[in-house]
Amino acid sequence: MAAPAKAENLSLVVHGPGDIRLENYPIPEPGPNEVLLKMHSVGICGSDIHYWQHGRIGEFVVKKPMVLGHEAAGTVVKVGAMVRHLKPGDRVAIEPGVPRETDEFCKNGRYNLTPSIFFCATPPDDGNLCRFYKHNADFCYKLPDSVTFEEGALIEPLSVGIYACRRGSVSLGKKVLVCGAGPVGIVTLLVAKAMGASQVLVTDLSSSRLAKAKEVGADFTLQITKESPLEIANKVESMLGSKPEVTIECTGAESSIQTGIYATRSGGTLVIVGMGSEMVNLPLMHAAVREVDIKGVFRYCNTWPMAISMLASKTLNVKPLVTHRFPLEKAVEAFETSKKGVGLKVMIKCDPNDQNP
Amino acid sequence: MAAPAKAENLSLVVHGPGDIRLENYPIPEPGPNEVLLKMHSVGICGSDIHYWQHGRIGEFVVKKPMVLGHEAAGTVVKVGAMVRHLKPGDRVAIEPGVPRETDEFCKNGRYNLTPSIFFCATPPDDGNLCRFYKHNADFCYKLPDSVTFEEGALIEPLSVGIYACRRGSVSLGKKVLVCGAGPVGIVTLLVAKAMGASQVLVTDLSSSRLAKAKEVGADFTLQITKESPLEIANKVESMLGSKPEVTIECTGAESSIQTGIYATRSGGTLVIVGMGSEMVNLPLMHAAVREVDIKGVFRYCNTWPMAISMLASKTLNVKPLVTHRFPLEKAVEAFETSKKGVGLKVMIKCDPNDQNP
Amino acid sequence: MAAPAKAENLSLVVHGPGDIRLENYPIPEPGPNEVLLKMHSVGICGSDIHYWQHGRIGEFVVKKPMVLGHEAAGTVVKVGAMVRHLKPGDRVAIEPGVPRETDEFCKNGRYNLTPSIFFCATPPDDGNLCRFYKHNADFCYKLPDSVTFEEGALIEPLSVGIYACRRGSVSLGKKVLVCGAGPVGIVTLLVAKAMGASQVLVTDLSSSRLAKAKEVGADFTLQITKESPLEIANKVESMLGSKPEVTIECTGAESSIQTGIYATRSGGTLVIVGMGSEMVNLPLMHAAVREVDIKGVFRYCNTWPMAISMLASKTLNVKPLVTHRFPLEKAVEAFETSKKGVGLKVMIKCDPNDQNP
Amino acid sequence: MAAPAKAENLSLVVHGPGDIRLENYPIPEPGPNEVLLKMHSVGICGSDIHYWQHGRIGEFVVKKPMVLGHEAAGTVVKVGAMVRHLKPGDRVAIEPGVPRETDEFCKNGRYNLTPSIFFCATPPDDGNLCRFYKHNADFCYKLPDSVTFEEGALIEPLSVGIYACRRGSVSLGKKVLVCGAGPVGIVTLLVAKAMGASQVLVTDLSSSRLAKAKEVGADFTLQITKESPLEIANKVESMLGSKPEVTIECTGAESSIQTGIYATRSGGTLVIVGMGSEMVNLPLMHAAVREVDIKGVFRYCNTWPMAISMLASKTLNVKPLVTHRFPLEKAVEAFETSKKGVGLKVMIKCDPNDQNP
Repeated sequence: MAAPAKAENLSLVVHGPGDIRLENYPIPEPGPNEVLLKMHSVGICGSDIHYWQHGRIGEFVVKKPMVLGHEAAGTVVKVGAMVRHLKPGDRVAIEPGVPRETDEFCKNGRYNLTPSIFFCATPPDDGNLCRFYKHNADFCYKLPDSVTFEEGALIEPLSVGIYACRRGSVSLGKKVLVCGAGPVGIVTLLVAKAMGASQVLVTDLSSSRLAKAKEVGADFTLQITKESPLEIANKVESMLGSKPEVTIECTGAESSIQTGIYATRSGGTLVIVGMGSEMVNLPLMHAAVREVDIKGVFRYCNTWPMAISMLASKTLNVKPLVTHRFPLEKAVEAFETSKKGVGLKVMIKCDPNDQNP
Repeated sequence: MAAPAKAENLSLVVHGPGDIRLENYPIPEPGPNEVLLKMHSVGICGSDIHYWQHGRIGEFVVKKPMVLGHEAAGTVVKVGAMVRHLKPGDRVAIEPGVPRETDEFCKNGRYNLTPSIFFCATPPDDGNLCRFYKHNADFCYKLPDSVTFEEGALIEPLSVGIYACRRGSVSLGKKVLVCGAGPVGIVTLLVAKAMGASQVLVTDLSSSRLAKAKEVGADFTLQITKESPLEIANKVESMLGSKPEVTIECTGAESSIQTGIYATRSGGTLVIVGMGSEMVNLPLMHAAVREVDIKGVFRYCNTWPMAISMLASKTLNVKPLVTHRFPLEKAVEAFETSKKGVGLKVMIKCDPNDQNP
Repeated sequence: MAAPAKAENLSLVVHGPGDIRLENYPIPEPGPNEVLLKMHSVGICGSDIHYWQHGRIGEFVVKKPMVLGHEAAGTVVKVGAMVRHLKPGDRVAIEPGVPRETDEFCKNGRYNLTPSIFFCATPPDDGNLCRFYKHNADFCYKLPDSVTFEEGALIEPLSVGIYACRRGSVSLGKKVLVCGAGPVGIVTLLVAKAMGASQVLVTDLSSSRLAKAKEVGADFTLQITKESPLEIANKVESMLGSKPEVTIECTGAESSIQTGIYATRSGGTLVIVGMGSEMVNLPLMHAAVREVDIKGVFRYCNTWPMAISMLASKTLNVKPLVTHRFPLEKAVEAFETSKKGVGLKVMIKCDPNDQNP
Repeated sequence: MAAPAKAENLSLVVHGPGDIRLENYPIPEPGPNEVLLKMHSVGICGSDIHYWQHGRIGEFVVKKPMVLGHEAAGTVVKVGAMVRHLKPGDRVAIEPGVPRETDEFCKNGRYNLTPSIFFCATPPDDGNLCRFYKHNADFCYKLPDSVTFEEGALIEPLSVGIYACRRGSVSLGKKVLVCGAGPVGIVTLLVAKAMGASQVLVTDLSSSRLAKAKEVGADFTLQITKESPLEIANKVESMLGSKPEVTIECTGAESSIQTGIYATRSGGTLVIVGMGSEMVNLPLMHAAVREVDIKGVFRYCNTWPMAISMLASKTLNVKPLVTHRFPLEKAVEAFETSKKGVGLKVMIKCDPNDQNP
């Protein structure tokens, strides 16, 4: 679809299943605690694709047109009256979830769990795949010169991996099993290694995905074919020399979750990242008597500042994750490309005057 | 069965399913790190009954005669050459699990998970339902005068509750759901209240069990009839005013575990204490996206010293738990009584010269 | 000083050292996230007295007239446009610290550490010792009918004890040393017992204060005379039977902090609550090689909801803490009484039509 | 000193201040839980030098001849009757501290705090700077082929850094200040980077030491001259862009500890590793009101298995730490070299037939 004429705030909008459109939206006015941003780079996430294809994810239904995009970075162009830590010209990464009230979850440091949270591109909240976007200033984080806009945008998917590894207590010298070599599995692998994991083993059905995992640092890969969960667990133990202290399950498949229970060392943790069926059949007693804790994750919290610090110091290299780039005017084409699953991350460039990383 | 003549170390021995016998065993000689104990009070546990009735629990099979009993207290009568902290005459409570090697689990403070652990009355290890018994001195804890032998013996079941509450992070002002009002549910309730839980709600199928829970301190009780797990969860939330931060599941029933997931507050913990089917069907994603952690328990660790401190200071009153007493000579009758499920705890008195609590 | 005529919002205002006045302030208008409260009960804190007497506490200087009071409860009379969880008529307890921005400390659940926090009656922020007061609605907590206004006001001093005990990891069966039997020491004692501490030993110079500590639940008291810190530590160990796992220092005296280091068990925690000299001479290596952690507290966070839950369930009885009551019109007299140090807590009744607890 | 004739178990023995001798000791016989080791590589530690020079460290006094050495690796040549996990020919790293009893510290996973612990080359316990040495098998850890003996020996100093970083909660993206660029500061730096610290700043008086720190990975170095602790803290903040979350103090100097308090971010941790004067003057209230926790370390615990895993996977490169090597016969010369403080680690080669790393 061609961009509308006079598109001062060109935006990619999902209207319902299979229906995304480039439309012109008004440029918003920031409130007292907000900043107006000129968007630069926005990555396409699997959830963006899912809203486009299905018009919903679980109970979140696209009932009215919604701007997509939540992996984003841009430049401050206007600040609200109360904003102190940002000024026009600051380059920032955007944390897409912003609590609407300071409830018990926020006060306890788990603001991702607050039920009324605003979240970019989760119905009914608009995302930031557009030219201009306003956001709560406290959830915009200044990027140092040494961190690119694209790295800033990649903090969002990276945060999923950071938070999963943190929930699993990945740390120096630990052995880690990552189930699934898709984008989430890959960032989890990168983060686990950056945290000092001594050995990370990645499983997947696809040999090409596993090749990618190997390329970016997996110590071991294991292609799943017809083995039972118990058999896979035994292979994992054999390859690592002992059971992994942490398993991070990124597929959502019942058999893979079962594998996670059998494979994890007594006293360790199985982190559930992948989403699957509502009901799952599990060898729960096997986990219980060995005190393998089962912990889920809901998005993330408290990851942006440390991620920026980490990217600035080159502790972690996420640049290879970007495999495709499209200008905002070709966003529909970008979504088609992302849907095909080729490459890892498709990045949309929202600033017509700066299409650099 | 009558006690054998010349029974200097009368012992209750299980030979196989349905076959327990009072027999005379030799008085053991303590090794350098051991103490010889004159047994005083030993409680009957559900597992003792189970070994008697079925000759096995899961993979633990009675393949040769085994002395029963692991909830115990007695008096030191002889100490090994290396023992420093105990002397003859000391009254002690016995922690039944003793690691055989100092492996990574022991070194990390989770010695209950060490696979090769010795455990009283778990095949093939003998228990202490007898006149004289030797045990590792480091796992015998001196009782102050203000703590009775029976309180000492009750530290074992109490430890299950302490450890479950600890794994669930029960603390001051928390709301707690306890599923099941059997002996384990009851001690869990007592401990949760002692830790400062503001409200404890106990569920069960049996109204008489719930009456007992109410009597010993439950703030609310809820009798389960035909409601679905989701309906029960809603009732719990309504009764407590909000979802409980912690649920401690003591039944092992699939529906009750499901209830635990639905009922627990986001960011809270579901502790799996009750043992059930190997495979369980669970609304795992419901737990995962609300970050309700699922943690099992295997027995307990690090509970005896603090339990003694607690009993000495009267922080917790466990005396009402003992509802029946039998001399060791009538151990078989005691087991018959325990099997009927009347009362809470049947205590066997092993010292013919002192049958006091 | 007499109340001014036409005093629709009578307020107690400190103008400088030794200068407090009852004055009429305008009734404030609540902002969109605020509520207007009709104040009911406000306790006098040592810091209120200190601002009155000295016009400053450390770097916080009274440079312009400031309303005093921060231990408070009242009734909602008006709600801002965005407020959802409160409505006129709701009785609430007020948490006096409200973050002005959502910085890294807030996001991590330690909002008490955010440098720009608003805090009642800490210069230049006005307190709530007045008839009408507006406050951020997210920091007003609804009281159930079973909790009185005064209990609501007492949550503030109670929070100091809760937070100190939490920082010290007080839990079931622990032995605790509390240095100082002033108001803070007393609430710390109450909270430690409510958390299940088996034995609490309280020290002080004053025998009458220690008598009060004994009366409200101290297991042991120790009057300090001329002993050295090491001698006191030895006495504490001897009285408790072993070193306490936790010491909570509430005096700020150098010798008492030294005692805390010597007295605490290896691997335990010394919590610094009392404020003292800027520089303190400490046997730091004695703490370091025994891994006695030294942790300070700055006010508190995350205590109101659980404190309300606890008060509603009668887990803790704070009512005896209130020893004096004065109507707001006699606030100056109330301050004179509090300054004398008689009794424990002086409560000011701000509602002329309801002077009940 | 020349080695004695017929020296089947040549050992380096300290007899008192300034008096070390190479002597022949009998080859010991392993007990049932022990292994006999043929020693391969033993590093010289500052404490070895200190015992040689002063005959004591604090309360630990050399009262009878003691074999030195506790940074060691060797080969199993004989196993006790109860040993299951090792066999002759296994190459192992030795953890020098072995608890003599299973007390509360051991049970809680903090076995380094058990008062009666055996520790190599801490009076009166003999070390392993000799040809043959017996040790508790549970504290000997099998080395994979990919880890050299010298790397195995270096796990001991490395453990100090691992444990210090763990106590300070160093993790991905954190900023860390390390005070002191001696051997302990250097390993702490290496470990902090391996744990994912984004920026590590190292301070020292010596520019050559700082050059070494820079060489092995310090992001920033700061040479201390005449600045006050507060001035240094400000410089640190300015260089890092914000205060570090963690400070690890490795010098023991009072001014450096003070710097650590001023420099650390609110809510962060100051870890005390360096040993200094018994009494230290500290700005304690500055730490307390900003909740900067002060935590000491006593040696380490639970580091060997993860360190081996880490070395095997090349997560960390410790090989450059070894700057000098001497055969056991020249141990006295090795000590002279180490005393001069040239290089970093002097390694003694105990196996006359294999002097390789």
